[in-house]
Amino acid sequence: MTLEIDVTIKLKQGVADPEGENTKKALNLLGFRAVRGVKTMKTFKIEVESQDEEKTKREVEEMCKKLLANPVIHDYEINVVKREG
Amino acid sequence: MTLEIDVTIKLKQGVADPEGENTKKALNLLGFRAVRGVKTMKTFKIEVESQDEEKTKREVEEMCKKLLANPVIHDYEINVVKREG
Repeated sequence: MTLEIDVTIKLKQGVADPEGENTKKALNLLGFRAVRGVKTMKTFKIEVESQDEEKTKREVEEMCKKLLANPVIHDYEINVVKREG
Repeated sequence: MTLEIDVTIKLKQGVADPEGENTKKALNLLGFRAVRGVKTMKTFKIEVESQDEEKTKREVEEMCKKLLANPVIHDYEINVVKREG
């Protein structure tokens, strides 16, 4: 079966998010004064062949640790969003 | 009231995603051979003061058009994820 898994990488609480802060400033300057804050996150949508969903989720956790996230500054979330076949 | 709105920016169908392709290659090289494809997306989590949710959603759509997304290559999705106050 093919799984579609969303891995969302976000900055840990307390880590500066200059891209988010500058986006907020730019939105305020463009006239969107009601915007109080902006945070940025990144999502990897991964398509994986899988016989065993639990095993695949553990593998995706390995992928986060080895490549996708930096454990010093990032938290991550793993969600299976689609199952096919 | 304060709304927390997630704006997800993704590449339109058919637009090349070199970051996703290279992430897939790297995962395969690291031994994750079951990975068939990787796509990347970006999310802006926006905190907005709002009296009127529908009006705020239209404003966020304006933000996408003016700053957050490039209509030539991006699609976007707007989701209210939290209401406070």
